[in-house]
Amino acid sequence: MNTKELYSEYKDITQRAADLNYASAVLQWDQEVYMPPKGFPFRGRQLATLAAQAHEWLTSDKYGDLLLRLSDAEGLTEDEAHNVRLSREDYEKNRKLTTDFIEKITNQTSASYDAWIRARKENNYSVYAGELGKMIALKKQQADLYGYEGHPYNALLDDYEKDISVAVLDPVFEGVRANLPGLLDKIKATTQVDDSVMEGNYPRQPQWDFSVDVLRKMGYDMEAGRQDISEHPFTTSFAPTDVRVTTRVDERNFASLLWSTIHEGGHALYEQGLPEAQYGLPLGAAASLSIHESQSRLWENCVGRSLPFWRCFYPMLQQYFPSQLRDISLDAFYKAMNKVAPSLIRTEADELTYHFHVMIRYEIEKSVLDGSVKAPELGEVWNEQYRKYLGVSAPDDKQGVLQDVHWSHGSFGYFPTYSLGSFYAAQFFEQAEKELPGLVSDMEAGSMHELLQWLRGKVHVHGRKYRSEELCQRITGRGLDVSSFLRYAERKYAGIYDF
Amino acid sequence: MNTKELYSEYKDITQRAADLNYASAVLQWDQEVYMPPKGFPFRGRQLATLAAQAHEWLTSDKYGDLLLRLSDAEGLTEDEAHNVRLSREDYEKNRKLTTDFIEKITNQTSASYDAWIRARKENNYSVYAGELGKMIALKKQQADLYGYEGHPYNALLDDYEKDISVAVLDPVFEGVRANLPGLLDKIKATTQVDDSVMEGNYPRQPQWDFSVDVLRKMGYDMEAGRQDISEHPFTTSFAPTDVRVTTRVDERNFASLLWSTIHEGGHALYEQGLPEAQYGLPLGAAASLSIHESQSRLWENCVGRSLPFWRCFYPMLQQYFPSQLRDISLDAFYKAMNKVAPSLIRTEADELTYHFHVMIRYEIEKSVLDGSVKAPELGEVWNEQYRKYLGVSAPDDKQGVLQDVHWSHGSFGYFPTYSLGSFYAAQFFEQAEKELPGLVSDMEAGSMHELLQWLRGKVHVHGRKYRSEELCQRITGRGLDVSSFLRYAERKYAGIYDF
Repeated sequence: MNTKELYSEYKDITQRAADLNYASAVLQWDQEVYMPPKGFPFRGRQLATLAAQAHEWLTSDKYGDLLLRLSDAEGLTEDEAHNVRLSREDYEKNRKLTTDFIEKITNQTSASYDAWIRARKENNYSVYAGELGKMIALKKQQADLYGYEGHPYNALLDDYEKDISVAVLDPVFEGVRANLPGLLDKIKATTQVDDSVMEGNYPRQPQWDFSVDVLRKMGYDMEAGRQDISEHPFTTSFAPTDVRVTTRVDERNFASLLWSTIHEGGHALYEQGLPEAQYGLPLGAAASLSIHESQSRLWENCVGRSLPFWRCFYPMLQQYFPSQLRDISLDAFYKAMNKVAPSLIRTEADELTYHFHVMIRYEIEKSVLDGSVKAPELGEVWNEQYRKYLGVSAPDDKQGVLQDVHWSHGSFGYFPTYSLGSFYAAQFFEQAEKELPGLVSDMEAGSMHELLQWLRGKVHVHGRKYRSEELCQRITGRGLDVSSFLRYAERKYAGIYDF
Repeated sequence: MNTKELYSEYKDITQRAADLNYASAVLQWDQEVYMPPKGFPFRGRQLATLAAQAHEWLTSDKYGDLLLRLSDAEGLTEDEAHNVRLSREDYEKNRKLTTDFIEKITNQTSASYDAWIRARKENNYSVYAGELGKMIALKKQQADLYGYEGHPYNALLDDYEKDISVAVLDPVFEGVRANLPGLLDKIKATTQVDDSVMEGNYPRQPQWDFSVDVLRKMGYDMEAGRQDISEHPFTTSFAPTDVRVTTRVDERNFASLLWSTIHEGGHALYEQGLPEAQYGLPLGAAASLSIHESQSRLWENCVGRSLPFWRCFYPMLQQYFPSQLRDISLDAFYKAMNKVAPSLIRTEADELTYHFHVMIRYEIEKSVLDGSVKAPELGEVWNEQYRKYLGVSAPDDKQGVLQDVHWSHGSFGYFPTYSLGSFYAAQFFEQAEKELPGLVSDMEAGSMHELLQWLRGKVHVHGRKYRSEELCQRITGRGLDVSSFLRYAERKYAGIYDF
C-alpha cells in the first residue's frame, strides 16, 4: 500500500470506531433521558458490546502496524501526520492495559458503584470503604501498567489531561491556598448578599422557554442539537452536527436550570465548533477535559454571571416572571446569583469556594495513591479538610465524603480538570476582552456572535491539535496562570461586596 | 471445544450481532423522533458501520463453521438445536448475496429513493420509472442469487415470509377477488354511514392522554416502553424490556392517532412478550412479518373497531371530549369508525377495501418480476387495476403509483404480509372467541388481560419456533383460511350496514 492507501485504511478504522462510540453516546443519552426503567440490563450489554468492538479495532495489531508504517511514511499532510501521531499515542496507551486488568476494573467499578449507592442509602461511609479500597489498589496497579515519573498520580492524571502532573498542579492549588482565603475573608467581612430571589415559585414552562432563548442567543445551533431534561445535566455529541444538552427544572430554584443550561451550552458550542472534516479523528475531538471545561465555565461564569450579560437578559427574564421579579432590581439579581458562601456540596458551590472543594479532592487523591492515607481514613480526612479550608462540618457522610460518584467509577485525576477549566476560562476571557473591544457592549446587547467566533477560531477549530498548555500559550502568550482568575474574582467580588 | 462451549460461542456471536442491531434500532428511533435535521449525514454512516459489523459476524467463516459443527453435535437442548437450525438457515441465505451485489443494491436504493422523492415533488411517475426499472432488474438478480422454484417472486417473498410462495398466495387473493366485491356491493347498496364525527376539533393533549389510557388497558407495559410522536407511526424494539411505539396527532382527525396507537400497541405487545431468555437468538425474535401484522391487526380491527371494546372506552372518550361527543351515540361512533368506502390511498383505507390495495400490488409485483409488465408501464397498469377493483381513478401519480415508498427501497414481497396479517388475525380471534367464553364481557369491562395472556401463550412466547403456517395450524387446527376473515367481515358489516 502507498501512503494514501495506508492513511485511508487508518482513517477508515478510526472513524468506524468513532461510529461505534458515537452510537454508544446515543444509547447513553437515551438511557439518561427517555429509557423506560426495565430497559437497563439489556442496554448495559449493548453498550458493552459497542465499547468492546471499538476497543478491539483501536488496539488491534493491524491498527498498530498501520500507525507504525504511517509514522515513517512520506507524503502526509501536516494534519494527517498529526492525526497519526495522536492516534499512535492513544494506541500505545490503550495497549498497556491487559484484558485481564480491564475485566478486573470493570467488575470492580460495578462493585464500588453498588457499594456507593448502598452507603448513600444507609448514609454510612464504612459500607463503601472496603470496595473503594479495592478500587484504589487497582488504580495503583493501573498507574504501574501505564508507567510514570515521579508521583503515581501522574499516570492517572494523564487519562484526563495530557502532560499535566503534580508538578504542574501543586503550584496551581498552592495559588488557590495562598490567595482565595484572603479574598474569602474580605467577602465574609462585608454585608451579606440576599439570594432568596433564586428560590421561590418559578413555573416550569417559562423557565424552559427562557433557557432555550439563552441557548439560541449564545449561538447554539438548534438545527444541530436539542435540549432535553435529565436528572443530572450533561452534554453529549453524536457528531459536530448533532450535539445534545440536557438540563433540569426545579420550580422552587430557578438557578438550577439556568446554570445548567449555560454551562452545558458552553460545552455544546465547543462540540458544534469542532471541524466536521475531521469527524472521528483526533483533530476532530476536543483538546482535553480542562479545555472543554474552560468553554463551559467561560460561558457560565465570565459571561453568564456577568452584569453586561444580564443587562440584556434580565428584562427578558422579568417578562417571563413578572410577578416574581417585578420588584427585584437588576443589581439585586446580579448580586444574588454571585453570592459567595462556604458550603458542603461541591456541585452547589459558588464559583469562588468551588476551588476549595476541588483542591481537597486533589490532595486526597494524591495521598491515597501514594499510600499515605488509607480508604478507611477518608471520612476523617475529608471532614478535617472541610473544617480547615471552608469552616464547615458535614452533619453526615452523604453531605461529606459520599457526595461524589467519581471514585466509585475509578475516576481518580478527573476533579482537577474542573479547576483548571475555570482558570483557563478566566485567562481566555481576559484575552478576549483585550482583543474584542466591543465585547462588553455586545454582551449588553445580547449579541454573543463575536465572542463565539473568537472561541471558534482560537479553540474549537483546532480539535486536539494542541495540548492544553500549548493552546493556552498560543491564545494568551503564556501557560496556565492562576493570576487571571484571581484578578477576575477580585474585581468581580469587590464590585459585589463593595470592598 | 465440546458442545457446550460451541453453543456458548455461537450464542455469544449471535447476541453480539443482536446488540449492534438493537443499537441501530435506537439510532433509527432517535432519527425519526428527536434527531435535529443536521444530524442526518453522520447518523447515516454510523448506521452503516453498525449494520456492516453485524453482517460481518453473521456471515463469517468462523460462524458458519460453528453452526456446521453444532448441527451435528449431540447434547443440545431442543431449543438450542432449534436456534442453531434457524441461524444456519439465516447464515446460508445471508451468504448467497455477494459483497458486490450488496453494494450495488445499496447504491440503487439511494438512487431509487431519491428519484421517488423527486417524482413525488413533481407529481410525475416518469421521473421515477427509470430508477425503479434498475431496481427491478437487481431484484431479479437477487432472486437468481437466492435460487427458487417456480416463480422468481418466491425467492423475494422468502425475505419477508418463509415458506410462502405464489402457490400459497394466489388462492388467498383469489379468495379476496371472489368474495369481497360481493360484500362491497351489499354495503354500497345500503344507506351510507356518516363518519364526520372523526373530523373536527380534537385538541392534542386529551387525544394523547386517551391514547396512553388505551395502551395501558391493552396491557402495554409502560415500564418497558414509551410512546412518542413521529411523522409515520412505528414500533421498534431494543429488547423485550424496551419496546417503543410512536403515534401522530392530528387535531382535525381523531382517527389518525387512535388507530396508530392501537395498531402499534399490538405490535409492541408481541415484542414485549418475546422470551427474554432468548435475547438476540432466533427463538427470541418474532415468527414472521405476517404474524407480527396479525398481532397489530387483531388489536386494531378485531378489538379496537369492535362494539364491546367501545362500550367501555366510549364513555371515557366522551369525558375527554365532552363538547365534541356529547351528542354522538355509541352506535353512531361505532359505525363511523367502521365506514367502508373505496379510496385511492392504501394507508387510509378501511379494513375491507384495504385488501384490494394489497392484491393490486401483489399482482403488479408478480408481473414485473416475471417480466410481463415493464417499469414504464406501471402507472397505466396501476390505474387500470384501481378502476377495475375499486372503481376509483387517481387524479395524479402521487395518489396513484407514487404513493408507497416500498419499491424504492427494493421491498418486493412485503405488501402481501399486510393482508396475511389481517387474515391470520381474524382466524386467531375467531379461535380466541371459542376458547375464551368471557372475551366479549371482558372487552366490555375494558379488561384485555385474558386475551393478552392467550396471545402470549399461543403466539408471543414461541418467538420464531414455528413458521407462520405451522403456528396457525397449532392455534386453530388449520392453515391460513380466508373464510375466517370473510365471516368476520360479513358479520360485522351486516350489523353496521343492516343487510
